[in-house]
Amino acid sequence: MNAEIISVGTELLLGAVVNTDTAIVARALSELGIDLMHTCVVGDNPQRLKEAVEGAIARSGLLIMTGGLGPTADDLTKETTAAAAGKRLVLHEESLRRIENYFNEKHVSENQAKQAWLPEGCTVLQNDNGTAPGCAFQAENGCTIIMLPGPPSELTPMLNNYAVPYLKKSQEYTIVSHNVHIYGRGEAPVAQMMDDLMDSENPTLAPYANEGECYLRVTAKARTHEEADRMCGPLIEEIRSRLGNFVYSVDVNSLEELVVKELAEKGKTLATAESCTGGLLSKRITDVSGSSGVFHMGVVTYANKAKEELLGVPHETLEQHGAVSEETARAMAEGIVRKSGSDLGVGITGIAGPEGGTPEKPVGLIYIALSDGENTWVAKRSPIGRTKSRDWHRHCAASQALDMVRRYLAGMPVTEQ
Amino acid sequence: MNAEIISVGTELLLGAVVNTDTAIVARALSELGIDLMHTCVVGDNPQRLKEAVEGAIARSGLLIMTGGLGPTADDLTKETTAAAAGKRLVLHEESLRRIENYFNEKHVSENQAKQAWLPEGCTVLQNDNGTAPGCAFQAENGCTIIMLPGPPSELTPMLNNYAVPYLKKSQEYTIVSHNVHIYGRGEAPVAQMMDDLMDSENPTLAPYANEGECYLRVTAKARTHEEADRMCGPLIEEIRSRLGNFVYSVDVNSLEELVVKELAEKGKTLATAESCTGGLLSKRITDVSGSSGVFHMGVVTYANKAKEELLGVPHETLEQHGAVSEETARAMAEGIVRKSGSDLGVGITGIAGPEGGTPEKPVGLIYIALSDGENTWVAKRSPIGRTKSRDWHRHCAASQALDMVRRYLAGMPVTEQ
Repeated sequence: MNAEIISVGTELLLGAVVNTDTAIVARALSELGIDLMHTCVVGDNPQRLKEAVEGAIARSGLLIMTGGLGPTADDLTKETTAAAAGKRLVLHEESLRRIENYFNEKHVSENQAKQAWLPEGCTVLQNDNGTAPGCAFQAENGCTIIMLPGPPSELTPMLNNYAVPYLKKSQEYTIVSHNVHIYGRGEAPVAQMMDDLMDSENPTLAPYANEGECYLRVTAKARTHEEADRMCGPLIEEIRSRLGNFVYSVDVNSLEELVVKELAEKGKTLATAESCTGGLLSKRITDVSGSSGVFHMGVVTYANKAKEELLGVPHETLEQHGAVSEETARAMAEGIVRKSGSDLGVGITGIAGPEGGTPEKPVGLIYIALSDGENTWVAKRSPIGRTKSRDWHRHCAASQALDMVRRYLAGMPVTEQ
Repeated sequence: MNAEIISVGTELLLGAVVNTDTAIVARALSELGIDLMHTCVVGDNPQRLKEAVEGAIARSGLLIMTGGLGPTADDLTKETTAAAAGKRLVLHEESLRRIENYFNEKHVSENQAKQAWLPEGCTVLQNDNGTAPGCAFQAENGCTIIMLPGPPSELTPMLNNYAVPYLKKSQEYTIVSHNVHIYGRGEAPVAQMMDDLMDSENPTLAPYANEGECYLRVTAKARTHEEADRMCGPLIEEIRSRLGNFVYSVDVNSLEELVVKELAEKGKTLATAESCTGGLLSKRITDVSGSSGVFHMGVVTYANKAKEELLGVPHETLEQHGAVSEETARAMAEGIVRKSGSDLGVGITGIAGPEGGTPEKPVGLIYIALSDGENTWVAKRSPIGRTKSRDWHRHCAASQALDMVRRYLAGMPVTEQ
């Protein structure tokens, strides 16, 4: 089945908002094995929207519309699309009641009520995070049309919980995907190592880059979920055997999620002492709901005085080696273990830029230390050829710290090139 | 002039990459006063690309292509677009030399050299951050075509430094925009307050929402930059007079940037004590390059024990009122001022969710305190009707803390509903 996506909203044409909806939907279609041929953005203009919808219905088997389902006058996706597909809009009582409940009142405004009018005979896709319901229905020529709300916080759960199951019902086969997450090897070398496996047709293998990490997606297609799942196994094992310790998880989507999970399983606690990352590492750890069981304390010691007073980094270490040095990172990690009483401590110090670099200590030079109170390991990140941003250096340093914790907990060499 | 954007790349159709290029180009066009009518994504398929380009050339005055200029076989934007516009590709010697320099070698591969072949008679847009040059030229029917590389790190500087000046040359007027940033009032009520100003045609006024904040963009069009700039003034003043203390800046793009700037100007320092935000506040402050002058220390006291030991929050306060309480937030802010010796201290404690809520203390309840060592102010965020994510609650709490610092430094009431 060929699909296309039409995103509706003048704000997308003004560049005020990045069109993440398309990427979210595109990825879901890819996981379903549905070929996406075309995506476009149309402003809040009924005539141009009508032309785009008519063209899409004529040439594609599946059309997904995002945005323009809301209460205001310029939200006209439903009216326009239903008309192009030859459907009337009818009032969906249950959706109206959901909107009334959302606002805690019996009489919602006419504008708000407009959201409960949906194409006749459609399957209603419930909105658990907002007021505008989505819907799925067939145009007269058989093209399946799905409408989803624009805000990603509403679109994503509606897509995953209602639209994807709707699409799965109409497919003869089931698709199962697993993501093999890799830290410490880039997308290009990983793709090269897997070159001979890339031609595989079922399961398929595809590499993706993701903010200083990468992952390989293994996707199999079969009559049943169990069969598709079983088909992925040998390829995942082959990847694991080629990449060894660089594989950090299958289907655990981030290093922080994995580390929190592993710490909890092993009953260990972690504390952080950050300089150049400025709290990003503790922020990422506490992004994981439930991290309070394994993370009790972090400090951001941006100034030297704070490193001395809070962490007991010796004044002489800072004097002799400087704040950005292996010795300081080590003393920070050891200091936070003592201070916090946690099992493990991380220390990070470096130059995130764009200012503050020198020929000896250039932007991007970052030391990351892990201590368990007895032993301490230090990794050094050196700037590589290209100019990278402050955000990039900070993100990668925090990722490397998490990877060192992951390796420690798994009994692997903590640092490995 | 009507414009459209065609982004080329199968990776965009697989959802592996979010199409930020379109938003970057769309914003630049909007600032130039060029109306963007349509954007689309086409995979690396010559036939479909040809159809999309031919359609765009026929109906628009300006076509911007992004992506597909690279060295590999599936990079076919130039070949296909030039053919559709009736142009041959010719070798651009200077671009070839730039590619040779980039790789530090005399003989670059045929694939790499392919990037130096450009439409005859075009204006070459130099790539200062990669190998593939861009170009600008006119199709036979007069449609202006601009091709830009796909990676945002190459596209953005080429757009700003070469493509925008190219487009400005052909325009009679200059556009100037200013963004009025607002904290504490949402997009909808702000738009309502400005309703009578929205019809203004020159300057224009448009509201934008942005992660718990909003801003109003004022845009004027005139013969000269100075004139356009002057025309924005009265409207900005009118907005300020209507919104008062809720306006936090004109053209300073984030609360953290403003707060770091104001702290530096006033010679004040700030320290943070975070619980539920887990380091997000210190991360945001240290996102600003040069923040080390005003931010020396932060702590993340996730566990009660850490609140007691690091910040001196009294055990009885935690026992009597709980970790999530006005009293604890206050003690955290006062504790970090004492501990750090900074002029100002922020304490944040709350329930970010999705777990951990109770009927008395629901998810989203967050207390934010600011202390200057003498006085302490506490704001309470209560969950409003909607289900919001952990990220959202954390982001908004950090923003509110920054806003309280901003208000303190400006001599305004620190908390205001």
